[in-house]
Amino acid sequence: MVNIPCSVKKPRVGIMIGDPSGIGPEVVIKSIFEERIKKCCQPILIGSVEVVQAVLDMLGKHAQLHVLTTPEQFNQINWDNEGIFVFDTGELALKDVTLGKDNAVCGKATGIWLDQADQLARMGLLDATVMAPISGVAMEEAGVLDRVVQPIPGQSYLLLVSGPLRVAHLTDHVPLREVSGLISRPLVEKTLEILQQTFEVWGVKQPRIAVAGFNPHAKGQEESEEIIPAVLASQQKGLNVSGPISPDTVFRHCIDGYYDLVLAMYHDQGHIAVKTAAFSGNYAVIIGPPYPHTSVAHGTAYDIVGKGIADHSMMLNAILAAASLAAGEGFPQLN
Amino acid sequence: MVNIPCSVKKPRVGIMIGDPSGIGPEVVIKSIFEERIKKCCQPILIGSVEVVQAVLDMLGKHAQLHVLTTPEQFNQINWDNEGIFVFDTGELALKDVTLGKDNAVCGKATGIWLDQADQLARMGLLDATVMAPISGVAMEEAGVLDRVVQPIPGQSYLLLVSGPLRVAHLTDHVPLREVSGLISRPLVEKTLEILQQTFEVWGVKQPRIAVAGFNPHAKGQEESEEIIPAVLASQQKGLNVSGPISPDTVFRHCIDGYYDLVLAMYHDQGHIAVKTAAFSGNYAVIIGPPYPHTSVAHGTAYDIVGKGIADHSMMLNAILAAASLAAGEGFPQLN
Repeated sequence: MVNIPCSVKKPRVGIMIGDPSGIGPEVVIKSIFEERIKKCCQPILIGSVEVVQAVLDMLGKHAQLHVLTTPEQFNQINWDNEGIFVFDTGELALKDVTLGKDNAVCGKATGIWLDQADQLARMGLLDATVMAPISGVAMEEAGVLDRVVQPIPGQSYLLLVSGPLRVAHLTDHVPLREVSGLISRPLVEKTLEILQQTFEVWGVKQPRIAVAGFNPHAKGQEESEEIIPAVLASQQKGLNVSGPISPDTVFRHCIDGYYDLVLAMYHDQGHIAVKTAAFSGNYAVIIGPPYPHTSVAHGTAYDIVGKGIADHSMMLNAILAAASLAAGEGFPQLN
Repeated sequence: MVNIPCSVKKPRVGIMIGDPSGIGPEVVIKSIFEERIKKCCQPILIGSVEVVQAVLDMLGKHAQLHVLTTPEQFNQINWDNEGIFVFDTGELALKDVTLGKDNAVCGKATGIWLDQADQLARMGLLDATVMAPISGVAMEEAGVLDRVVQPIPGQSYLLLVSGPLRVAHLTDHVPLREVSGLISRPLVEKTLEILQQTFEVWGVKQPRIAVAGFNPHAKGQEESEEIIPAVLASQQKGLNVSGPISPDTVFRHCIDGYYDLVLAMYHDQGHIAVKTAAFSGNYAVIIGPPYPHTSVAHGTAYDIVGKGIADHSMMLNAILAAASLAAGEGFPQLN
């Protein structure tokens, strides 16, 4: 049961089908056949229509495919038509797919599709985007790995969502011994402002933000010189911010409902909490772009591709979340 | 249900009653009235016999008290007697207790009791010791806070146990930016050897030890220059060691049964995992002393002291674990 009040106007959610050699297209198609997706958003797949048809066949499912090839068609097509809408500019043919194996042609195509999703969203033709599993190896071979949206301190942030636990990260893939030097009052303050504004737009009013400390029991130089002044300044601006809170208890407090999200200081601080708590159906959201961009926590699962047995629960949640956030209706209650 | 096979000779477990102004004596007495404690060990309380009697009265429980005042009496007393054995050298009178409030007299007494527990264990009169909640404030006021056994890198280690998750910490209360400089091949190698030997003595044969990385995805300089060489050297010595493993997945793998314990590189790495996973009945063990020393994860709970409502499940587990490890029977299966 999903508790998403549906908007009058359904948000258009662009779903990049992921690397076609992996399970991405399969979990995407399984998801959009779910009634609750149809109720709450208008999904538009971004990828190869040939691949989509092949996966439909593999799954024994039937649907009419409506192909869009230019942005202009978004305003011409009849969205009330039954079937599946696919934006496909012909980057990839089915014969280029090597199920269960990385290849640079697929990598290049996924890079282009990610770019297209971003452009369509920035043109206002999509309200949110979702990324199915890509292959970092294939994209690197094709020289397009930079197309994957990466968190940049001060500009964009990785938000992991796992049941009631939501964790934004101040810093991402940084050697741990360098994190101390990155924690500054201006960065923490700016991040809190971005988190506050983004959550408001998404429908979480006056979000209760907990700031994790950096040191054991949140007691150290980084706290006294940088984090505490940033929290005090944010509170004076009216933000509902608490902290710094001992890193070993703040995530449990969020799970118990005392906060809407935790701002973690470094990658593993948040990732250890999320992956150890292990609620099901995890997804990630990138905070920073002017639209919600979600992705799943799993990979291409080459070992089970083409068998129709891939679990699509994470993809389902990632799409439901993108739709709900784009509609300004907050985080969906999933179970 | 507890699955501890009982030794022929029951281990003698010394239980320091904790700060008498807190819930320590209450959870200790509730625990030793449990049948499974009586079956598997001979508990000896260390603390004030007047306090013990007062808590028995408060709980409406009755037991004969056998008071030992010198180490020599351990070899003279009839352990087959029914009742509760208390080692009390007269450090504290009931009138010195201020329920729910810190006081230096209680702090001083708890310091002395901790020393006595350690001495009795080193004399071979106790097989294990357990520490009930102390008050850091009261002990600091009395100038005896150093009596609490603290992990010292290279000598002693904090092991947190939470359901199937067991985490030893290479470093403890160290500013996070200083941890990188402490991670060295010799320290990791020595620690792995101590963990291996200790677990063997405790009854976990060929323990499967997972070493957590330090950086995101266990990829960085600390891994390549210090941790990996230490793991390889340990493997060559025959230890069953894996790693370094990505810090955000290694704890989940331990919970899922792939390892007997994880060696965490820093305080919060382990503490976040343990406190977020939140199995019930957590306890801590200090690795290093020549006997098992366990303690509970909660504090003196001044707000509920004297009411008889304190939950003793953590204390029960701490005592059962001390008994089981001292008997060389491994970690008890608790639930």
